[in-house]
Amino acid sequence: MNDFLIFHWLKEVNHWGKTPEGGISRLAFSQEDKGARKYVIDLMEEYGMEVRIDEAANIIGKYAGTEPDLPAVVIGSHLDSVPSGGKYDGVLGVLSGLEVVRHLAQNNIRGRHSLEVIVFSNEEGCRYPYTLFGSSVMMGDFHKPWEEIKNMQDEQGIKLVQEIKELGGKPEKLFLARRNPEQIKAFLELHIEQGLVLEDKGVSIGIVEGISAPIRFVLKLMGSADHAGATPMVLRRDPLMGASEIMLALERIVKETSVTAVGTVGQINVSPGAVNIIPGTVTLSFDIRDIDLAARNQIVRNLEKVIREVCQTRDLKYDFQEIFNISPVMLDTQMISLIEQVCQEMEIPAIKMISGAAHDAMVMANHVPTGMIFVPSVAGISHNPSEYTRNEDIMKGVEVLGQTVLRLIK
Amino acid sequence: MNDFLIFHWLKEVNHWGKTPEGGISRLAFSQEDKGARKYVIDLMEEYGMEVRIDEAANIIGKYAGTEPDLPAVVIGSHLDSVPSGGKYDGVLGVLSGLEVVRHLAQNNIRGRHSLEVIVFSNEEGCRYPYTLFGSSVMMGDFHKPWEEIKNMQDEQGIKLVQEIKELGGKPEKLFLARRNPEQIKAFLELHIEQGLVLEDKGVSIGIVEGISAPIRFVLKLMGSADHAGATPMVLRRDPLMGASEIMLALERIVKETSVTAVGTVGQINVSPGAVNIIPGTVTLSFDIRDIDLAARNQIVRNLEKVIREVCQTRDLKYDFQEIFNISPVMLDTQMISLIEQVCQEMEIPAIKMISGAAHDAMVMANHVPTGMIFVPSVAGISHNPSEYTRNEDIMKGVEVLGQTVLRLIK
Repeated sequence: MNDFLIFHWLKEVNHWGKTPEGGISRLAFSQEDKGARKYVIDLMEEYGMEVRIDEAANIIGKYAGTEPDLPAVVIGSHLDSVPSGGKYDGVLGVLSGLEVVRHLAQNNIRGRHSLEVIVFSNEEGCRYPYTLFGSSVMMGDFHKPWEEIKNMQDEQGIKLVQEIKELGGKPEKLFLARRNPEQIKAFLELHIEQGLVLEDKGVSIGIVEGISAPIRFVLKLMGSADHAGATPMVLRRDPLMGASEIMLALERIVKETSVTAVGTVGQINVSPGAVNIIPGTVTLSFDIRDIDLAARNQIVRNLEKVIREVCQTRDLKYDFQEIFNISPVMLDTQMISLIEQVCQEMEIPAIKMISGAAHDAMVMANHVPTGMIFVPSVAGISHNPSEYTRNEDIMKGVEVLGQTVLRLIK
Repeated sequence: MNDFLIFHWLKEVNHWGKTPEGGISRLAFSQEDKGARKYVIDLMEEYGMEVRIDEAANIIGKYAGTEPDLPAVVIGSHLDSVPSGGKYDGVLGVLSGLEVVRHLAQNNIRGRHSLEVIVFSNEEGCRYPYTLFGSSVMMGDFHKPWEEIKNMQDEQGIKLVQEIKELGGKPEKLFLARRNPEQIKAFLELHIEQGLVLEDKGVSIGIVEGISAPIRFVLKLMGSADHAGATPMVLRRDPLMGASEIMLALERIVKETSVTAVGTVGQINVSPGAVNIIPGTVTLSFDIRDIDLAARNQIVRNLEKVIREVCQTRDLKYDFQEIFNISPVMLDTQMISLIEQVCQEMEIPAIKMISGAAHDAMVMANHVPTGMIFVPSVAGISHNPSEYTRNEDIMKGVEVLGQTVLRLIK
C-alpha cells in the first residue's frame, strides 16, 4: 500500500460534528452521526461493497469473497463520539477498514472469505446510556427490557427508537440483528490506544492481548453537616475526610494487588457544599479495571473492607452500589500470534499490551476470534479535542491491518 | 422575670420567611426581612423605645437612661437568615434584648445608662456578600469602595443601595452610621451556640471568651485528565488523590497544632467529572479557624508545605489563593467575669468557651467591651430547618442577659 486516502476521508468525515475548539461532538444517532454515516455508506458503495443496515442501525458493508458461504472476516468500530471528543476514536477503525477494502478492490484482490466493514451504532453510550449498543445487539448480549428501550430518551426528550428507525433500524425487532458467531471467521479492530503506554515505549503498534473491563460503584458516605467554626475537630463526623482515606486506600490497594489494574474516582460531590459547613454527604464514583478478574474482585473486596473500617472509625453511614459490571476478556491467542507475525515480517516494532478502555472488540471477543491493533495517542490524550495520532503511525496500523486481513480472507 | 413573651414573638417574627420544611429563608433586605424588621420596630415602640434607622439600615431602639449623656449599654444581633436556615440564629438575640426591655419597662426600672437594642443589617452576607455589614459599618470597619457598593446586586439584579434606601438607610452616606466607641459602655449578644459543646457538656449557658475567626483559601490542583482505563497507575497525575492527601494532612495538622483550632474542606469540585476520566483539575475550599492567631498562621504554613510536597511528588501544579481573612478576637475579661458572676449568683451552670462562628459581637469586640452568651443548639444543628434550642435554655439565657444588663445600666 503506497497511497492512502484515509487522511482525506478522516478530514471529510470529521466535518460532521466539528466543534469550535477543533474537537468532535458526534453523539450517537445525531444529525452529525447521520452525516458521517452517509459519507461512509457512500464510500463503501464506491468500492464495491454491498451495504445493509441491520435492526440496531449497524452499517454492514460486505466486500464479497469468492466462496460466499464461508464465514466472513470482519473489521469494525464506530463513528459516534463523546461530547467534545477527538478526531480519531472509533472513526479511525472504520476508515482503516475501508482503506483495506479500497486497496483490495483497486488491485482486484478477492479472497475466498468475504470481508465486512461494520459501523457499530452507539458505542460511546453518551446520548443514550447503552454503551457498546450495536455490537452487543449483534452478539446477543443486549438484554434490556423492551419497556425500557421503548421509553428511553435523550435530554431533549428525543426517543431512541425514533432515532434508530430514522437510520433504517427496526428497534422493535432488535433480536433479528443477532448473528450466528459461526458466520464470522475473525473480528479485527484498529483503534487509538487512548493511553500513554505506546508513547512511553516509543513503538507504533500495540497488539492487544486482553481488554480490561470496568466494574463501577457509587459510594455515598453520610456524616453530619455541622458548622465549620462551631464544631470542634473531635466532635466531627466529616464524610469528606472519610472519602479522602478511602480514595488513598483505593490507590494503594490497586497498586499492591495487580500491575495491570487501575482504579479511578472520577466524580465526587459534597452536600451541602458551602465553604463554612462541614460536608454532610459525599458521593463518589469508582471505576476499577483489570484484565485479571480475580485480582479485580480482590480489589473490590479490599476496598469494601476499608470503607467499613473508615465508616466505623469516623461514625459515618454508607451505601455502596454496583452500577456497572463487565467482565474482562482475553483476545484470541491465534489472532495475537498472527498480528505479531505480520509485524515481524513487516519489521514494524510492536508490543503486546492490554487495553484499559472498552471497545466493540470486547463484545466480539466473547463470541468470535478477535484481534485488536492499537496505534499511539500522543500524550495519551483521548476523549478530548487534543486527541491526536501521527499519520506515520496510522499508516503503519493500516498496513498491519491490511496484511492481517490478506492472510485471513485467503 | 416570671413571664416570657419571647416565645410568642419568635413565632410571630418567624412567619416572615417560613419555608415549607419548617425552616426560615429571610435573606437580608428581602420582603421577609422587611416584615420581620417592621414587627420588631413595632415592639420597640410598644415598650417605649425611641427608634431610628441609621445609614446602613441598622435598627437602633433606645430605652433611655436617667443620665442620657452616659454611654449606652447595647444588646444586638440580626434578623436576616441564610437560605433555608433556622428559627433561632440571630433573631433570638434581638428578641431577648426586647424581653429585657419589656421587663424593665413594665417594672418601671430605668438605669442611669440608656439601654439600646440594635438589629444589625445583613449579618449573614448571603444575598449580598458583605457579611457582618451593619456592625462593620457602625464600627468603621467597612472599607469597600463606593464604586463596588453602588453596583453590588443580588442574583436577580436588585441593587444593594436600592434595598438599603427602601429600609430607610442612606447608602451613599454610610460613613455617617459610624459611632464613636466611647458612646457605648458595653455590648452584649445572646446567640445560639450552633455547635455541640454545650450539648456535650450538658450545660445551658456558654460564656464566650473569644471568637475564632476564619481564614479561607481556594486551592486549585492541576494534573492530567486521562482515560480511566487506558492510563496505568504509575503514569497518572491525579489531582484528586493529591487532594485526598492534603485534606487528611489538614485534619492532622489542625489537631496537632491547637485544641481550639478547626479546619474544614466544605467544597470540592472535580473537572471533567466523569466516571471514566481521571480528574484533570480539583478545586477545594479551606476554612481554618482558631482563637489563637499564631496557631492559625502555623496551621496555614504547615498546610502550604504539605501542598508543595504533594504537588512535587505527584507532578501536579497548584494555585493557593486566600479569599477571606478576619482575625480572631478575645472578649473583654471584665464582661466575662460579670456574666460568670451572674450565673453563679443565679445558680445556673455555665462554662467558658470559644465561639467558632463569627458574630456581630466579633466586630464590636474590637472597639467596645463585649460579652457574649451562648445557649445550646440541640444536636449542634444550625443554618438548617432543624435548628432548635429548648425553651428552658432560652429562658435561662434571657435571665442571665437581663441580670447582666441590670448591673451594667446602674
